[in-house]
Amino acid sequence: MRLQRRLLHNEFVCSLASSISTRLQSSLPKTEPQSFRQFADISVRLASPERLQPKPEVKALQFGKQFSDHMLKIEYHARAGGWQQPIICPLEYLSLHPAAKVLHYAVELFEGMKAYRGRDGVIRIFRPELNMLRMNMSALRTGLPGFDSEELIKCISRLISIDSEWVPHSEAASLYIRPTLIGTEPALGVTEPESALLYVILCPVGPYFGTKGSNSVSLLADPSFVRAWPGGVGDKKVGSNYGPTILLSKTATRQGFHQVLWLYGEDHQITEAGTMNIFIFIINDQGERELITSPLNGLILPGITRQSIIEMTKEWGQFQVTERVMTMPELRSLSREGRVLEVFGAGTACIVSPVSSIHYSGEMIQIPTLDQPSPVYSRILQTLLAIQYGHIEHPWARRID
Amino acid sequence: MRLQRRLLHNEFVCSLASSISTRLQSSLPKTEPQSFRQFADISVRLASPERLQPKPEVKALQFGKQFSDHMLKIEYHARAGGWQQPIICPLEYLSLHPAAKVLHYAVELFEGMKAYRGRDGVIRIFRPELNMLRMNMSALRTGLPGFDSEELIKCISRLISIDSEWVPHSEAASLYIRPTLIGTEPALGVTEPESALLYVILCPVGPYFGTKGSNSVSLLADPSFVRAWPGGVGDKKVGSNYGPTILLSKTATRQGFHQVLWLYGEDHQITEAGTMNIFIFIINDQGERELITSPLNGLILPGITRQSIIEMTKEWGQFQVTERVMTMPELRSLSREGRVLEVFGAGTACIVSPVSSIHYSGEMIQIPTLDQPSPVYSRILQTLLAIQYGHIEHPWARRID
Repeated sequence: MRLQRRLLHNEFVCSLASSISTRLQSSLPKTEPQSFRQFADISVRLASPERLQPKPEVKALQFGKQFSDHMLKIEYHARAGGWQQPIICPLEYLSLHPAAKVLHYAVELFEGMKAYRGRDGVIRIFRPELNMLRMNMSALRTGLPGFDSEELIKCISRLISIDSEWVPHSEAASLYIRPTLIGTEPALGVTEPESALLYVILCPVGPYFGTKGSNSVSLLADPSFVRAWPGGVGDKKVGSNYGPTILLSKTATRQGFHQVLWLYGEDHQITEAGTMNIFIFIINDQGERELITSPLNGLILPGITRQSIIEMTKEWGQFQVTERVMTMPELRSLSREGRVLEVFGAGTACIVSPVSSIHYSGEMIQIPTLDQPSPVYSRILQTLLAIQYGHIEHPWARRID
Repeated sequence: MRLQRRLLHNEFVCSLASSISTRLQSSLPKTEPQSFRQFADISVRLASPERLQPKPEVKALQFGKQFSDHMLKIEYHARAGGWQQPIICPLEYLSLHPAAKVLHYAVELFEGMKAYRGRDGVIRIFRPELNMLRMNMSALRTGLPGFDSEELIKCISRLISIDSEWVPHSEAASLYIRPTLIGTEPALGVTEPESALLYVILCPVGPYFGTKGSNSVSLLADPSFVRAWPGGVGDKKVGSNYGPTILLSKTATRQGFHQVLWLYGEDHQITEAGTMNIFIFIINDQGERELITSPLNGLILPGITRQSIIEMTKEWGQFQVTERVMTMPELRSLSREGRVLEVFGAGTACIVSPVSSIHYSGEMIQIPTLDQPSPVYSRILQTLLAIQYGHIEHPWARRID
């Protein structure tokens, strides 16, 4: 009976997701992608020397609270031919009409990327084309204008070069890059905005949960805390996925947990943890080691760290790597049988974050992630860091000149 | 089998909703409600005469595109004691840090109210205490600060009196009031904002779909278009409920429909239509007339027009009034038996809007709302208008001095 319910439910979810995808694709604008003004048109206005801020020390960095000296701004006006000239200027307050759609209807999306200063002094960014692809998908879903990915990467690279001294001289820190796209048209109708602003700000950031993996996190898995659903926007990086989670995350923190493990459905499917994708490393029914992560079924964010981990571990070929739904009852059973080796989160901000316990249905499930002699999460983390900080040359790392 | 699935599904929804409610309530801050600075502290800076805009003609009004001369602003800073002095000033652009949480994580909510100029020249607002209650509930859910309802009503009333000439001299128009609350703290963490801005802007608006009821709407009921979900924020008036619907509504419009009829779940429960609550007037199994609307199960907005219609029609006592889930298959069956008399939407913007057809599962269900000799929707609309425009004195209408 329980299995039947679960199958019915999954069938419902899959058919919904597929139906939405088909319908939305068939209803997308048939026009050409909107042309993005060339990077070559960029205008740069530097901050005067007395306005330059002191760079904070690495140990004093707080995530997302200190910003570099400059920003990138590109306005979009449908009636003025679309995208306007890219502008790099001193970081400044934005001037928005109080009826701007972003302030009422969450017509907004963002990305998260990082620039790393390697031991060779070279600054690199990690697979930026994937962030741009996801940003364009978020724009399409939110009624915001699309753009040419490579042109925006060039503009962002120029911004990073101008603020290059803000890229920390440390392998325990990096420069967080926040591209943002908001609907600015001052009109209260719930419709696509005719004007928009794409902007990019930069923040030096330290380790999110520590880079040595010594800081593991505890998760609260409560089926009443729901992040996304079929027909929603759970697979897009839009503001609407975040605001509604604040109170729930706070509730978890108050109860002593680091983050929420987001579940979905009657069968308590594991989807994401906090703002990270989740990986579960187990001994499967064939007695083999298997790394499992949630599939891209519309309910989870298609993380770039997630994708990189899947590609990297498949290339290693040392264990099975599977994208499939795992439920909390299944994880609990595997745990009771001693078959859960590791659980870890993955994302741009945290990179890889080991999980030590999951509270579910009145029970604290202990996860021996930190007890493994040579844990997979740690090897993944070290490999990613080696690529990002240029210890090894790799096509995923793109140099900023 | 189908019934069993439906029961299981409903049981799941109800238990989730109940669980969330209990948990959130138990986790709410135990502190006193934050005190709102007194209306008595209000500061008023009037626009200079040359800056006053000409009032548009009623027939030229477009919803939410023209704004009055002044606005109300109240800043909140947790570190500076909370709410600051209320300020009425000329309508102006807002200056926001590019890292303001509202621009990234949709930390935002709003309300919709109207001021009506009666045939007696008196300006009235409709049950504003209910908007303030809902706004406080939205704030609680979004991590934004709560406030004293009556003090804010006084501030808004003062704003309306200053811009009183913007309340149209017409019973086919009104002044739309848009209280908005946004998180302004410049920090990229997904946490409660330490600073916020509450502001109110005003727009003269004409009839949304016409006040005579001659303009009926057609709805697209597509189960892949999902507005809200248990564990989400479907019952709060927050930006996150709106942005994700833009593309779906546009898809419906492209297919020739006015609005989306939002369904939920495997059994295709009817929840809302566009941005309206929905009412269905039928002949029930006992052969009696019955007015049915979706219950407040967390999936629909607790509309003030909805509540007023329920209270009003119950007081009339001429037919049954029921809050319960109706599914699309049930509506289709009733329609085939000729037992659907009327369907109409209800909300502050549209007041009451008759529905003429619903497209569902490849079939166009015709609704004879406009064919009734003395339709209920029309009596409801006329009664609400009579209260709002002061044809009858009623406690729901509050005078602005």
